[in-house]
Parts: sequence; C-alpha cells; structure tokens
Amino acid sequence: MRAHRLTTRRVRLGAVDLGRGAPIVVQSMTTTPTQDVRATLRQIRRLRQAGCELVRVAVPDAGAAEALPRLVRASPLPLVADIHFDARLAKTALAAGVAKIRINPGNLGLEPALDIGRAAARAGVAVRIGVNSGSVPERQRRAARSSESLGRLMARMAVRYAGAFERAGVRRLVLSVKSSEVAATLAAYRTLAGSSRLPLHLGLTEAGGDLAGAVKSAAALSPLLLEGIGDTLRISLTGDPVLEVRVAYQLLSALGLRRRGVEIIACPTCGRTRIDLERMLRRVEKAVADITQPLTLAVMGCVVNGPGEARHADAGLAGAPDGSFMLFAQGRPLRRVTAAAAVPALLAQVKKILLERGKAHAAESSA
Amino acid sequence: MRAHRLTTRRVRLGAVDLGRGAPIVVQSMTTTPTQDVRATLRQIRRLRQAGCELVRVAVPDAGAAEALPRLVRASPLPLVADIHFDARLAKTALAAGVAKIRINPGNLGLEPALDIGRAAARAGVAVRIGVNSGSVPERQRRAARSSESLGRLMARMAVRYAGAFERAGVRRLVLSVKSSEVAATLAAYRTLAGSSRLPLHLGLTEAGGDLAGAVKSAAALSPLLLEGIGDTLRISLTGDPVLEVRVAYQLLSALGLRRRGVEIIACPTCGRTRIDLERMLRRVEKAVADITQPLTLAVMGCVVNGPGEARHADAGLAGAPDGSFMLFAQGRPLRRVTAAAAVPALLAQVKKILLERGKAHAAESSA
Repeated sequence: MRAHRLTTRRVRLGAVDLGRGAPIVVQSMTTTPTQDVRATLRQIRRLRQAGCELVRVAVPDAGAAEALPRLVRASPLPLVADIHFDARLAKTALAAGVAKIRINPGNLGLEPALDIGRAAARAGVAVRIGVNSGSVPERQRRAARSSESLGRLMARMAVRYAGAFERAGVRRLVLSVKSSEVAATLAAYRTLAGSSRLPLHLGLTEAGGDLAGAVKSAAALSPLLLEGIGDTLRISLTGDPVLEVRVAYQLLSALGLRRRGVEIIACPTCGRTRIDLERMLRRVEKAVADITQPLTLAVMGCVVNGPGEARHADAGLAGAPDGSFMLFAQGRPLRRVTAAAAVPALLAQVKKILLERGKAHAAESSA
Repeated sequence: MRAHRLTTRRVRLGAVDLGRGAPIVVQSMTTTPTQDVRATLRQIRRLRQAGCELVRVAVPDAGAAEALPRLVRASPLPLVADIHFDARLAKTALAAGVAKIRINPGNLGLEPALDIGRAAARAGVAVRIGVNSGSVPERQRRAARSSESLGRLMARMAVRYAGAFERAGVRRLVLSVKSSEVAATLAAYRTLAGSSRLPLHLGLTEAGGDLAGAVKSAAALSPLLLEGIGDTLRISLTGDPVLEVRVAYQLLSALGLRRRGVEIIACPTCGRTRIDLERMLRRVEKAVADITQPLTLAVMGCVVNGPGEARHADAGLAGAPDGSFMLFAQGRPLRRVTAAAAVPALLAQVKKILLERGKAHAAESSA
C-alpha cells in the first residue's frame, strides 16, 4: 500500500500530534448532554478504550460550557469544543483548557470567528475551521451545478477563511469540508489538499445508521486516504460513538495505514460450508474484542480458499471436509483439531503469540 | 460523480446483461446446502427481494449438481454454478441450464478448465474465470514482495487464462481477481482493467463479519468503481447473504452509480441533540425497507446542520430547539410537527411522493 502521505503542517493538540508524519488520529464526538459530566466522562472512557485519541463535545449553551472545566480535568483524552452561533461560549471553552475549538465561520460570522481564533492563538489552542455543505449560503449552493462544484466551492471557502485566520496570526489550524455526499466530499478534500498545507480532518456528515453510514464513509474516505489526504478522521454514525471508532480503525487497517486490534479474515460461507462458521466467527470476534495489539486471524470454512488465505494470518483455522479443522500459526500448519476444540485452540494460540511478543518486547527494553 | 465507465465486452447471462453500458449487476451467493432445493430457493427469493440480480450456488459434489435442474427451473434469478476441483460437475451444471459457470483454472488445471469452457461455449453459457490469491502457487506467492506485486501477478494469471480460453473459442467470459487484502485487490483490478476488455466481477474475499467486512469491501471497491472499473460486484460477508446485497446497493448508491430504495441522510447526533434520533431513524429505516424506488430522506436532530442538509432530500425532518420538527419536502419547508407526529408525517409524505410518481408514470405510459 502507498505509505506516502501529503506533507502538512504539524499541529499539537494536548498530547496528540496532528499532521506531517504523525499517525492519522482517530476521533469521535460524545452524544451525551455535555452538562451531564458523569455520563459524558463515562462515554469518553469507553471511546478511549476503543482507541479514540481525541474527543469532541458539543457546547450549545452556557450549561454545557460550564461543564467544560470539570470535563477537561477528568478526561483521559484531549477535548475539542464544538461551538456554533454563539462566540461567547468559545471564550468559556478556552478558559476551561480545551485542546481545540471547532468553529464554522459560516454560522458565526467571519469577524466573531476571527476573534475566537485570536483568543485561541493567545491560549495556545488549535482551531478547526469546519465548513459544512449545510452552511454554504443558499444562493451559492443553488448556483453550484454539480456535487463536485459544490465541493470545490466548500474548499475555496475553507481556504479563504484559513487565509483570514493566518493573517490574524492564527496558525494552529485544522481544516474540514464536510458534506453528506461522496462526490462533493471527494471534490472538496482533493481541492483543499491541492491548495493548502494545513492538516485536514476527514469526514462525511450525516452518513446515517451503522451499516449504511459505515459503507458510505468508507466509500468517501478510502480514495482520499489512498491519495495521501487526511491527518485525522471522524466517522459520523447515528448511534453509539464507540462504533465510529471501531469503523475508523477497520478502515485505516484495511488500507494498511494504522493497525489496532485483531483483523479477522473470514470466508463468506457458501453451500460448501458444513459448519456454522458465522457462530464461530462471532465467538472469536467476542473473545478478541479487547486486544489492542495488531493481529491477523483467519476463520475459514472450507478447503477451497481456506488454507491458501489462512496461511497469511498470524493464526488461523481452515475447515476440512471431514468436519475437523487445521490450526495454522504464522505460516505453518500446527495440528488438526475437532470442530469443538477449534476456537479454544485458536484462542490459546493467540495468547501464546501475545505472550511471546511481550517477552520479546521485555527483552528489547532491558537490552 | 464521474459517470464514465470503462468499455468492456457485453456478456449476456440469462435475462441479465453484463458490461458495456449495462448497469453494474449486483450478485450474491447462497449459503444453504445446494441440494436442499427448498431452502436454497427460499434464500434466492429473499435475495431477489433485496435487489439481487444474479445468484451463485456452490456445486461441491454430485448431490448439489443433481439439484441444479430443479433450482434452474424454479429460480427467479439467473444461476451461476460455482465449480471447484471436479470438472465433471460442470457438465451436469451446463445440462441443467445455468446462466454462468464460475471456475478457477488454478485448482481445476488449465486443460480441464478449457474443456469446461468449450462445453459452456457450445451451450451458450458464460464463464467466469475467477483467480483467487489463495490459488496462486505457493512459490510465486512467496516471491511476490508486496501485496501490490501479488495483485499484479493475479491479474497476469487471469489475462493468460483468458487468452487460452479465447483461443479455444470461448468468448463469453467474465474475469475476477479476488484477494482478502485491499492493496492486492486494487493492484489486481487496475492491472486487469489496463490489459483486458472483458467484463470484470469485483469483490474482496473473506472480508469478514458484517460491519468490518462491509467497511473493508467499500474501502477496496470504491476507488475501483470511481475509476470506471467493474461490471458486476459481490460483497462477501460472513452471514445472511441478503446483507451482501444491501451493502452492494449502499455502496453503488453512495457513489451515484445505482440507486435502489431509500437513502437516509441522518445526523450522527451529539450533545446538542435533545431527542432520541437513533430510535427515530430506526423507525424510518424499518418503515421504508421494502421501498425499491430511489428516494432520499433526511432525519436531522438539530438546527446546526439540519435544515441546510435536509432541504436536499425528497422529504425530511429537522429538529427545532423546542423539541418540535420542521417537515421538508422537495426543497420546501411544509409545516411544523410535534416530535410524536414527526415520523408518521414523514412517512405520509413518502407515500404522497410515491403516489405522485406513480401517477406521472401512468400518465407518461398512456401518452
């Protein structure tokens, strides 16, 4: 896979680095009422557990803004304050010590937005300028003849805003140009990447429910990520934000850009399959869900593609016509196991691999 | 979106056309034992209901092959027989009247595969030559230094096989080069599209469970489809194949290539959301699941992005701060509704749109 990434300006957000050579940062957004500090922190901890590195909270009113100092103090992740319409809330958020402010000059007005930018710069806090297709003025949106021209229009708006912020001395900037359409998203980010060296936050807004939203997000972000575009991403899904983080890693892992946790190669099953592979897959998925180290496992129902594919995995199972399984590990067939013993044998092998890695790591550290 | 598709040879499969200007064909594969005719037909009917246009059945043994005449007779979709290892099964499948045979010369041997090809050509039946990374000879696979070179190797194998088939007089060919890796898949299909004008069957094998598999498939196929590559596709997921068809349409719809059924734009919800949008979305999703006409709906929780995005939908709801909703239709705000009345109001609007379309269609037809 093309390892090449476009070179962007490095921006620091708390303990997290964004841009120029830093890993692509996975972020999400809480869905709890921000003023409910306990519920919000609980969700942030769950997000972190799933691999989230940066978390955004909505700050729609004074109640939410007043909760920020407590959230910043207790959050295990750097916080991004999402500010709309009301510039005063941004001041409260800056005073609370958030790592980044997300604003859209399209709904705040450019001058109030620049004021926030200057205050953020003084506080050493980054600013994301987030242009949304929904905030493109109605007349301009109607004039755009295609999704692509709407996307390019959004990119030009973002570049123009960024120029105004830079002239005002605000340099810790991140840009995003989100739309709910794949075509507009592709055109927007490609145009933006071609005309700015600021780090880019990728995302498709209003993607929808879990499966449809994940497919639409992957369809839009995969081409961009493969072109080297994107320094951080958020997958927007309706529902539990932990799923957003899982999908983000599934996408980055599929593209060879970041690995976290276990990737399972599993055959789709067909009329050849003589075992309940789906149940077996769910059992393995469940057992390895909390492993954060990169690992590839294979669960293959039959001999047609099974052995050939499974040999590439760190460990794997491939079904034999007699109902037994071959356990593979790191390229070598290990032994034949019964169907009942197959999943426990695979999990024991996983444990062994992780243990050996741990020992190798310990040996390296003490050397 | 780029409407351009690469020009490929047109191949007819029963009532379905593949390649050169035909819509991208959505296919799947049954997971029932093929000899269980009743269960297989039930699954085929469910697949057709979901929009599947071509269905593959595994033919691993004589029992499965003997069920084919009954399946062909009763199936509402053209059938593809999946043949591995045993060439005699292909003859039975051809006699049964399947629309396509899928073979892999890598596991059948080239000469037996060519024999099947000649018999298929005589019967007027198409052949898919399906190269899988699992069937690349071990020595060559080890020699490939990267996923990309493995992909290019698979493409060269497919082109070499296709040449042998064409010289043997077999011209109704479809090619596929599947792997479980995104990088290998991209390299394989790009190389193939550059050196063959045969229609291509896209897919990623062993993609995994539903969500992870859907993300990985979309990540691999989106760039190819956007480049004009692909005449038919199958999304391989472990589990119910109906999901494969849904994901295929979600992907094609996101890319503007084919529409079927309702696309729902829904906001991801955040701390600003004052209503249970997820539940609302699920209610709408469920109510419109059986609509096959293309329609875009919006379910937006709040005023920040809501109204701007929802106006682009055929019909939509956008939440207001007081807990009520604005119902939109085809670009115009219609009326304010209470939260309880919102979903029924949206569904009534959907019914109205479909009814009006039906009338317009009837008027056109009788004109």
